[in-house]
Amino acid sequence: MVATIDPFHAIAISREAHALEAAGRSILHMEFGQPSTGAPAEAIAVAHQVLDTDPMGYWESPALKERIARHYGERHGVAVDPEQIILTCGASPGLVLALTCLFRPGARVATARPGYVAYRNNLKALYLEPVEVPCGPAERYQISADALAAIDPAPAKAPDGLILASPANPTGTIIPADELARIAKVCAERGIRIISDEIYHGLSFGEPAHSMLEYAPDAIVVNSFSKYYSMAGWRLGWIVVPADLIGVARARMGNLFLTPPVLAQRAGLTAFDCTDELEGHVEGYRRNRQLLLDALPALGLAQIAPPDGAFYIYADISHLTNDSLSFCQRLLRETGVATAPGIDFDPVDGHRFIRFSFAVSTDRVEDAIARMVPWFQAQGGR
Amino acid sequence: MVATIDPFHAIAISREAHALEAAGRSILHMEFGQPSTGAPAEAIAVAHQVLDTDPMGYWESPALKERIARHYGERHGVAVDPEQIILTCGASPGLVLALTCLFRPGARVATARPGYVAYRNNLKALYLEPVEVPCGPAERYQISADALAAIDPAPAKAPDGLILASPANPTGTIIPADELARIAKVCAERGIRIISDEIYHGLSFGEPAHSMLEYAPDAIVVNSFSKYYSMAGWRLGWIVVPADLIGVARARMGNLFLTPPVLAQRAGLTAFDCTDELEGHVEGYRRNRQLLLDALPALGLAQIAPPDGAFYIYADISHLTNDSLSFCQRLLRETGVATAPGIDFDPVDGHRFIRFSFAVSTDRVEDAIARMVPWFQAQGGR
Repeated sequence: MVATIDPFHAIAISREAHALEAAGRSILHMEFGQPSTGAPAEAIAVAHQVLDTDPMGYWESPALKERIARHYGERHGVAVDPEQIILTCGASPGLVLALTCLFRPGARVATARPGYVAYRNNLKALYLEPVEVPCGPAERYQISADALAAIDPAPAKAPDGLILASPANPTGTIIPADELARIAKVCAERGIRIISDEIYHGLSFGEPAHSMLEYAPDAIVVNSFSKYYSMAGWRLGWIVVPADLIGVARARMGNLFLTPPVLAQRAGLTAFDCTDELEGHVEGYRRNRQLLLDALPALGLAQIAPPDGAFYIYADISHLTNDSLSFCQRLLRETGVATAPGIDFDPVDGHRFIRFSFAVSTDRVEDAIARMVPWFQAQGGR
Repeated sequence: MVATIDPFHAIAISREAHALEAAGRSILHMEFGQPSTGAPAEAIAVAHQVLDTDPMGYWESPALKERIARHYGERHGVAVDPEQIILTCGASPGLVLALTCLFRPGARVATARPGYVAYRNNLKALYLEPVEVPCGPAERYQISADALAAIDPAPAKAPDGLILASPANPTGTIIPADELARIAKVCAERGIRIISDEIYHGLSFGEPAHSMLEYAPDAIVVNSFSKYYSMAGWRLGWIVVPADLIGVARARMGNLFLTPPVLAQRAGLTAFDCTDELEGHVEGYRRNRQLLLDALPALGLAQIAPPDGAFYIYADISHLTNDSLSFCQRLLRETGVATAPGIDFDPVDGHRFIRFSFAVSTDRVEDAIARMVPWFQAQGGR
């Protein structure tokens, strides 16, 4: 038997939401982390030109690799050679690529719990062993250097790798710079290879997130055009690999995945500099976040992770339910608001959490709050 | 250390070809198997509309899955449920998905040698064991039922799986229907799971290729829009999984890869029925193939695989060299014709083979022949 992979329950919620919508119900989609905005206008204009002029064969864009490499110098003060950039069909295959570049079956890889469902599932699909580190409100739902250092160093228990996410999914919490530095130090001392998922970079509401490359030059960074650049369905991402892994990564990319979509690469190069339009989206997320934070008392939700970035609020609903999936189903059926159950992110404690994505328009967030406040109040009285 | 993956030498040839081109040389690209034509005109028109109207989030097209499922009924007389179709970002991740649905690390998977380089490399990347079956001109470079049945059935040697390709890369040979049926029978008897790579379906110059689904309903079929549909850089493919693997495959697709590009799915649905334009490309390949076949005596190439389909000629050059990579490099530098060395497809005997791709325009094939005939004749005299 091949490894068992858990289903992504938010997909079941979303399917039901779309079925209700098709039957005439008004649905507010807050179940997935995808921008409701499209690609920047200038990027779309470039795509129109490319469609008319380029037969689009297998290709990777040297200019895009150079632009991305330059970004690490400008934004993070880190020198990255364009050859260190491997373009991928999104962050998901980017993570798979990173894992296969670093680990053999049986390797142990630490992740925060709660965390993005695909970390645990892809580790299992590749026969790597997830080492889930429980992270609660005291740790701001993030792995700390102390927690890493506290893991038993016995060869049968010590992690070979670590997947970090900052800002994180489902919580939006950001790891501060000094803590990233401490984590890098522990990993260097213990020989733990780091994969840093930086897919939510650019989406922060206080201090911008730092790249792990500032502290661990041999980390593999995963990023994408799906979130900040608002190009989820274009399927374009990248990983940054250290110089000694370029050959390993290129050989795997060429064989496992070949090349990313040409149109996305051409449009993505333009999108990289559409700062005004993209920062406008971030301002929208900032408004949405504040509306939800302001509404929390009326919803009776006291315990949430501090959403430093990304576009999520991860809320404790243990006073209302012990079954987050049923809770999300009832919320959807009774109010039309689709959300993600915590069990997608945390198989142990997620039954008492819910994730709201506010990557939708502000009027939809307002509508969702208006629908949810009386519903949540009624739940509290049950 | 992670598994070592061989480089794809044709990429090195291509890089040098592009460098020569940038320096002003006239280069004829016959090194890769990619159409020089673009997507069908109607598909491009659809893509323009979609760009202007769809924000393109994570999405998979129910209509495309239905259209592909219907194709198996119409073309092959096989009932396929749309849920059995898993849309992928091309055939490469489709193969990875198929392998992870069927096999655990350590499983042995038989392939024909020569064969597409990514079969061997992806098996190694996933810690599966390639069982390469040497196939020469007597076997038309394809695995036969007899060859499979002859493999030692001892548990430590018997294959758990088989990757078939018909039409094949690099040879273009097609496995006849009765032989597919015999292979299916041997696999059923020996419990060998089949992955049938049908990416060159639609490109045949005599009898059309049959699908393995006609003979082995539990096979996984891999296919793509990159060859017949002329949409290589759009990155869209699919696999067909048996009903009992739908859940396994969907969970892996969602976690490992998420979704394929929206634009490719919308355009691909239209491309599926652009038969006139696509059959025009096949007629071009047929002309190119005949031109090359007619030129073989002048090139001194007597021993080739019969190119029943695809757009390749795989030729024995053992009378000229024992080092196909150097041979391809000299051919490129001295004539501007870029080709692929046999070592990409066969690490044992490939040093005495070369692959020509004729997926280029007919005038380029004519130009290539005009350049190669005197060069090959000069080699013969060395």
